[in-house]
Amino acid sequence: MIYLDNNATTRLYQSVYHKHCEILHRFFGNPSSLYPAGVEVKAMIERSRVQVASFINADLSAGDTILFTSCATESNNSALHSAIHPNSHGKHIIISAVEHPSISVTASNFEKAGAKVTKIGVDSDGNLRLEELCSAITDETVLVSIMYVNSETGVIHDIANVVRTVKNIRENIIVHTDAVQAAGKIPIDVQALGVDMLTLSGHKFHAPKGVGVLYIRRGVPFVPFVLGGHQEHSLRAGTENTASIVALGEAAAITKAEMASGSVETISKLKEFMENKLKIIFPESIIFGEKAPRVCNTTNIGFRNILGHKLVLQLAKKGIYVSSGTACNSSSAKPSTVLTAMNVPNEYISSIRISLDSFNTEQNIIDLLIALEEILRGKK
Amino acid sequence: MIYLDNNATTRLYQSVYHKHCEILHRFFGNPSSLYPAGVEVKAMIERSRVQVASFINADLSAGDTILFTSCATESNNSALHSAIHPNSHGKHIIISAVEHPSISVTASNFEKAGAKVTKIGVDSDGNLRLEELCSAITDETVLVSIMYVNSETGVIHDIANVVRTVKNIRENIIVHTDAVQAAGKIPIDVQALGVDMLTLSGHKFHAPKGVGVLYIRRGVPFVPFVLGGHQEHSLRAGTENTASIVALGEAAAITKAEMASGSVETISKLKEFMENKLKIIFPESIIFGEKAPRVCNTTNIGFRNILGHKLVLQLAKKGIYVSSGTACNSSSAKPSTVLTAMNVPNEYISSIRISLDSFNTEQNIIDLLIALEEILRGKK
Repeated sequence: MIYLDNNATTRLYQSVYHKHCEILHRFFGNPSSLYPAGVEVKAMIERSRVQVASFINADLSAGDTILFTSCATESNNSALHSAIHPNSHGKHIIISAVEHPSISVTASNFEKAGAKVTKIGVDSDGNLRLEELCSAITDETVLVSIMYVNSETGVIHDIANVVRTVKNIRENIIVHTDAVQAAGKIPIDVQALGVDMLTLSGHKFHAPKGVGVLYIRRGVPFVPFVLGGHQEHSLRAGTENTASIVALGEAAAITKAEMASGSVETISKLKEFMENKLKIIFPESIIFGEKAPRVCNTTNIGFRNILGHKLVLQLAKKGIYVSSGTACNSSSAKPSTVLTAMNVPNEYISSIRISLDSFNTEQNIIDLLIALEEILRGKK
Repeated sequence: MIYLDNNATTRLYQSVYHKHCEILHRFFGNPSSLYPAGVEVKAMIERSRVQVASFINADLSAGDTILFTSCATESNNSALHSAIHPNSHGKHIIISAVEHPSISVTASNFEKAGAKVTKIGVDSDGNLRLEELCSAITDETVLVSIMYVNSETGVIHDIANVVRTVKNIRENIIVHTDAVQAAGKIPIDVQALGVDMLTLSGHKFHAPKGVGVLYIRRGVPFVPFVLGGHQEHSLRAGTENTASIVALGEAAAITKAEMASGSVETISKLKEFMENKLKIIFPESIIFGEKAPRVCNTTNIGFRNILGHKLVLQLAKKGIYVSSGTACNSSSAKPSTVLTAMNVPNEYISSIRISLDSFNTEQNIIDLLIALEEILRGKK
């Protein structure tokens, strides 16, 4: 199997796997229990919190919060629920037109309940139209949520600039970013970004599925989403998913170390190698967001009049795994919201997304290129 | 370690542990992906759904739903959110006075937002006051949520009778039961109970933490709580926690098989042995709910003027783990809501809960009794 779908999910780091299994096997106590088997796992959770804080440069001692949730979708739901509620100072949410459904669908749900939602467009390269954002802000605006990195194209949004722009207009607007696709691909520094809230997903950086993070900056009010227990410092009820939380902390520590020793540059070179070859072999193809700042690992490519999901299945027959759009949308036949927002021509809109990670090799890319050529030339 | 706190959490069955680790290691694909690594894990999730349905006698083919959530707390939150929402026919919720905080706190939160909440009391044995329930129902009532088994005392509520009573008065009231503490201790048969919704927690029956279930009867409308993805047949968004879901299915199948081969009777005998000895050695003690129908594994015992949480720590020093109240409340010094609702005299209200399972032996009980005698006689 050649796995080139790391934006959909990643395989566990070996040590994360062993850590997870060790906790499951040896440390099954309830973190709320008073006796050692509870106290020791509670301490492990706190250690994981420190690892995650270090990964994104949050300052726990200053009052920043790292909240463990069940997934990034829950984190995103929680961020929106916290910002817009019966007592919030307004009922207007601003998001981008290219958000993950866990933001856009949740926002639509608030819209049905009477809130106002504005979606900020992107240009044909996928860059956020910042001027649209400025003119959208009103006295009623309580939240701006713009993703850090787009899952389909890898386009990076300048979140630090979004925060500055928004806060210059109104200081009390909460700015949230879904940084799920940033982890391990670009540094995440919550101090430098200046965001109020930020979402991470464990399984996008080699931790298990079933655990996410919501960072909340010190001083930012938070209204809990899942209620009924003192867990997570009374901010998220429910018995802690200890093994997954500890695994996520471990994955954050390893990812940080890997990035420090050049993993991003390595993946970047691999992507450059791949894209150069793709452009030569398939001159009619389009790499979406090519001119925009993009993360090191993501290539979204359209081949004229080729259906992405069919190509995905043909590649899978050859043991090569990529996706069409995001995994969350891949089983749907609808054209990608992201590419639609980028005004991609109809004959290119059904694309494939190739997303690399540090496990991938040049040989993987060569195998992909050969397979693509066989499939696409066979068609012509 | 002698672990007698199985209502707080349970250790994994050996085969559940191996299954969980196998999925983490070998089947890391995203269940939403089109290719085999996605399709095969999606099939595993569906197999787990069938195992859970079989465990509680749900009928998937008739349209019953088994929804995987991140924990029982989320299931309980979801049940309440689904029943009471802007379009629901009324704004009145009925719960018992002895519910888990994931029900009672969530209900209080709806109360703050304008809903009406009625709490049905229990008698001194912990039995629900059914006559109070009858007179509490109004045209505005949308939900009745009564736990199947109380986590602190093990008292069983006659949910089938609750359902009959409620539906006789108003057919369109949703009846939900939190059956977290029933799993593995009494048969759960959703057809016989007649409930509309039912909650389970994986880690209470030897599956991992971080996964729960919400059963929804066919024809019962459900409004999703976590939004933004097509997962779980569009009823719960977020990438599926595959390994934990598969592990939960396995645990459900094993628990069902163990119950069929007499595990409940075995645990019951062990509890009877323990309670008989406790009453002889500590004649001044009170076993709460003793006269009520109780599950096979739970003994909540008060020793006059002895603080439960101190006793827990003293036992822990001897390697014996029990709890004071539920794990969720054990770190709080407040008297138990459950025992308060049962009108337990002040000098007995700080109790310990001993909760057994099939891993426990008669020798464990003898060791507990010796330890208790040493600690309590030493005090006198």
